[in-house]
Amino acid sequence: MEFSELIKTATVEDVLLWRPGLPAVRGTLCITSHHLLLSSRPGGELELWLLIRNVDAVEKRVQNLGWYQPPRTGGSLRDTRVSGSSGTITLRCKDLKVLQLEIPGMEECLNIASSIEALSSVDSVMMMYPFFHRPPSLRLQQGWHLCPPERHFQRVAAQTSQWRLSTVNSDFSACPSYPAAVIVPAAVGDDTVARAARFRQGGRFPVLSYFHPRNGTALLRSSQPLTGPNRRRSREDEQLLGTILDQGERGFVIDTRSAQAAKQARMSGGGTEPKASYPQWRRLHRALERGRALQDSFGRLVEACSEPAPSTERWLGRLDSSRWLSHVKAALSTACLAAQCLDREGCTVLVHGAEGTDTTLLVTALAQLILDPGCRTLEGFQELLEREWIQAGHPFQLRCARSASSHARGKQEAPVFLLFLDCVWQLSRQFPLSLEFGEQLLLTLFDNAYASAYGTFLCNNEKERSLCKVKESTHSLWAWLNQPEEKHKYLNPLYSHNPLVIWPSVEPQSIQLWQGFFLRWIRPSQHLDEAWLEMRRLVQGDSSWLPESAGKRLSQPLPEPPAGTER
Amino acid sequence: MEFSELIKTATVEDVLLWRPGLPAVRGTLCITSHHLLLSSRPGGELELWLLIRNVDAVEKRVQNLGWYQPPRTGGSLRDTRVSGSSGTITLRCKDLKVLQLEIPGMEECLNIASSIEALSSVDSVMMMYPFFHRPPSLRLQQGWHLCPPERHFQRVAAQTSQWRLSTVNSDFSACPSYPAAVIVPAAVGDDTVARAARFRQGGRFPVLSYFHPRNGTALLRSSQPLTGPNRRRSREDEQLLGTILDQGERGFVIDTRSAQAAKQARMSGGGTEPKASYPQWRRLHRALERGRALQDSFGRLVEACSEPAPSTERWLGRLDSSRWLSHVKAALSTACLAAQCLDREGCTVLVHGAEGTDTTLLVTALAQLILDPGCRTLEGFQELLEREWIQAGHPFQLRCARSASSHARGKQEAPVFLLFLDCVWQLSRQFPLSLEFGEQLLLTLFDNAYASAYGTFLCNNEKERSLCKVKESTHSLWAWLNQPEEKHKYLNPLYSHNPLVIWPSVEPQSIQLWQGFFLRWIRPSQHLDEAWLEMRRLVQGDSSWLPESAGKRLSQPLPEPPAGTER
Repeated sequence: MEFSELIKTATVEDVLLWRPGLPAVRGTLCITSHHLLLSSRPGGELELWLLIRNVDAVEKRVQNLGWYQPPRTGGSLRDTRVSGSSGTITLRCKDLKVLQLEIPGMEECLNIASSIEALSSVDSVMMMYPFFHRPPSLRLQQGWHLCPPERHFQRVAAQTSQWRLSTVNSDFSACPSYPAAVIVPAAVGDDTVARAARFRQGGRFPVLSYFHPRNGTALLRSSQPLTGPNRRRSREDEQLLGTILDQGERGFVIDTRSAQAAKQARMSGGGTEPKASYPQWRRLHRALERGRALQDSFGRLVEACSEPAPSTERWLGRLDSSRWLSHVKAALSTACLAAQCLDREGCTVLVHGAEGTDTTLLVTALAQLILDPGCRTLEGFQELLEREWIQAGHPFQLRCARSASSHARGKQEAPVFLLFLDCVWQLSRQFPLSLEFGEQLLLTLFDNAYASAYGTFLCNNEKERSLCKVKESTHSLWAWLNQPEEKHKYLNPLYSHNPLVIWPSVEPQSIQLWQGFFLRWIRPSQHLDEAWLEMRRLVQGDSSWLPESAGKRLSQPLPEPPAGTER
Repeated sequence: MEFSELIKTATVEDVLLWRPGLPAVRGTLCITSHHLLLSSRPGGELELWLLIRNVDAVEKRVQNLGWYQPPRTGGSLRDTRVSGSSGTITLRCKDLKVLQLEIPGMEECLNIASSIEALSSVDSVMMMYPFFHRPPSLRLQQGWHLCPPERHFQRVAAQTSQWRLSTVNSDFSACPSYPAAVIVPAAVGDDTVARAARFRQGGRFPVLSYFHPRNGTALLRSSQPLTGPNRRRSREDEQLLGTILDQGERGFVIDTRSAQAAKQARMSGGGTEPKASYPQWRRLHRALERGRALQDSFGRLVEACSEPAPSTERWLGRLDSSRWLSHVKAALSTACLAAQCLDREGCTVLVHGAEGTDTTLLVTALAQLILDPGCRTLEGFQELLEREWIQAGHPFQLRCARSASSHARGKQEAPVFLLFLDCVWQLSRQFPLSLEFGEQLLLTLFDNAYASAYGTFLCNNEKERSLCKVKESTHSLWAWLNQPEEKHKYLNPLYSHNPLVIWPSVEPQSIQLWQGFFLRWIRPSQHLDEAWLEMRRLVQGDSSWLPESAGKRLSQPLPEPPAGTER
């Protein structure tokens, strides 16, 4: 396939761009393999670059007259009589931005729309923009070895000899969604581990997620055991989990499904660790929703946020029925439970749901942020994301293929990663000094997980990344973010190291809507951004950088940076 | 009456004090005329001073055994069999703080409870604490002439000669709830004004609230006209309002009642300005709730906030059914409407509801904050409060007699002033650089409106204050707040002068629960306070003041400052 085959019309003059809360812009529209570009005329002061991968849904509407009325809801082409002389395309982006393009000429409009649809639906990883993006300031290998499993292991090994780095998965045969090296109990050989893997869904045998230096307890994660309807057992799995606890010690299994759902999973081959075979482990069920339920919740909330002028009653009703805040509360509560078992009860904890790639990672990653001050630095947080989300095999490509607006979404989409970012935002709001990074980092991470110029969030696991040569052929997002001129944007000016565990309040009264994300393109955030800049200026003691000028800069945001050199 | 008659037991040893989120304290309890004092033993490191006027409700419970269980809900004495050997008193304070005192000895417990009840119910103004409070750092007259009507008039007169300062009310005969001097149209004589006053409820004839220097438009306020069922007219009132507008000019009357309610008011002698008699004025109705509806809303929200561990669904349901956020939205929207008529339409505006002492002031005060950068400084905000709330005759004594918890509340209580403070908080959140003061000032103002050591919020109007010699015999809150060592607590470290109108977003998605107020004593705010201190430290460039030490100080807050010298 050539990109040129998908582009039916590459350039249209005299296109009008509408964005909420900003003045309309008239200019020339260009469609390239990866970008939509609008340059304003005359003079071309404004250039809008939009990564086409960021487009979640395309809505077309053909108009009859010169008088423009922005469409309220998108109608499909078939509903509309094709009699107009211009058309409007509404682009709903994955980052929740909404753009409207008024295009003279009906044919051009339809061509542009179908080009965008085709280009945004290309699903071959190696055709995606990160394989073409070559920012001049970066080298290709930079940032790809931010957090090798070896480094994490070294930190653990400095505290205890109970764990070892296993290469049983070096060819991804034991578990296709695990990285090549994982940390397992030192007392268990690779043969045992490989056999235990066969007893866990997708081969995700229990591995060390976090070692708590304060009291030597461990946080582990896995997928569900494949007990099935006949209550199958695995000596090796029992041995692996048994060896972690000393005699008389107790561990907790936190199952992220309800007891009912965990029981039902036996019918399809899954299940839970039966008490009889794992006598030292006590099971706790904390049901966290995922998959379709979470995706629908996200969609409902985004829809509610964009409703113009609802009554307070209607808004609170829609906020409630979206159930998003309940998901945030449930995720934070479960992470607190895991952290509590480790820190207060002094017990080792194993977390899993079914596949062990979604809510499991949500809980283990949040628990580490709560417990470990190291994870709350900018560098530590990037390592945490690498370790507990990317290398741990959260299937980003499947989960983040479509965002809140797409009608064509598959069964695999789910904003689990967004839920994580929202929980981190809640932590940052409750502990404004304790995290070294700010909201802007969380927004940037969301944007890049859904559409990116960098390879970091591509594919579903390390095996796929290795097959696609992602680390050899794309740039790392971390390399970009950690450049000094970028990095300062993500730092929290108020940060001061807090060595303590940060226990968040998880009462619903304390959980807030993440306005900076959900209302990002709807409400002007200029004044809040200015406050952030002002704080940064204060910290830097640089009084020449006035918030006024920053405000001016922010009032005409360019949604995408220039594309750099394309190959 | 002597205070000593009301104090049945003055001192009890070995009392246990419980406060949410803080360790219990054991010590000696003393009841004085105005304070409840608990000094911890041994050593007396902690002294809790509580102004008894701050007590909103007293709940007693008598226990049978030595083992203490904090009561979940308060039961009245009659429900409980009197067989115990100790008792627990729950004090629900007007500032929403909840204290529990475990008192050995049933009789002592009942005596203490009835002493607190009696002392907190004293309703003679001149018996209240401000008449006894003599802080050594202040002189009595200080701060009482912060904003004489003359000063406000001088600013208006510098711009236009259309207005004059009238002393028609110098003996409070024209309008008992107006100050001695008010600003009226220059073209109208005092005789006309006095006659117009008879046509307005409580004599509240139209006066100048704010002159908008940008385009010379004026904001006026009054009470409803007394048209009654027979559609009575007043030539003088028509003349007063007629003379403000040039020929062909239009003005707006913003009526803070629904059209229906305004019509019904005719039955009881009130009404609206009929179009026929006021041809240049166009009437807009924006229903704002007040009185009992608002008080109940406040009570419901406070109850919902203190529910332990509700589900998210239940919390959002209770938040919604409290309707508090709807009131905030409605108040801000109406203020924006008034500001818009002035600033964008270039029209003069008259605001009134029925009495003109509640929602009217809410709207005129908020509109000025939105329009006028001068009102957004610490000094300007104090002047605004003086002018538009205190001198304008908001009946603080009636409205703030009881807070959210009292069961004995009368018909006159209503948290209109709290609603104003909440709206100001919403502005400060949306425009974090534009207000010179921070949340701490708003909290302090609330506390002092309901229970204070200062005379500023005593009585219902200037006439009463004059009769009670408040300005001669009590200290002004402003004098206290404006002392350098106090003042810095209320300043916003991020403030930078913003000369523009600040138009808030009034969509329900943008209105947030004021957690700093409603959850003040429920959720730990230590980390948020630290952030504020850190910002202040940054501004002051004083790196010796570490947030850690500040945090330690804040973790044992003393709810009341020491009482100073009593007479």
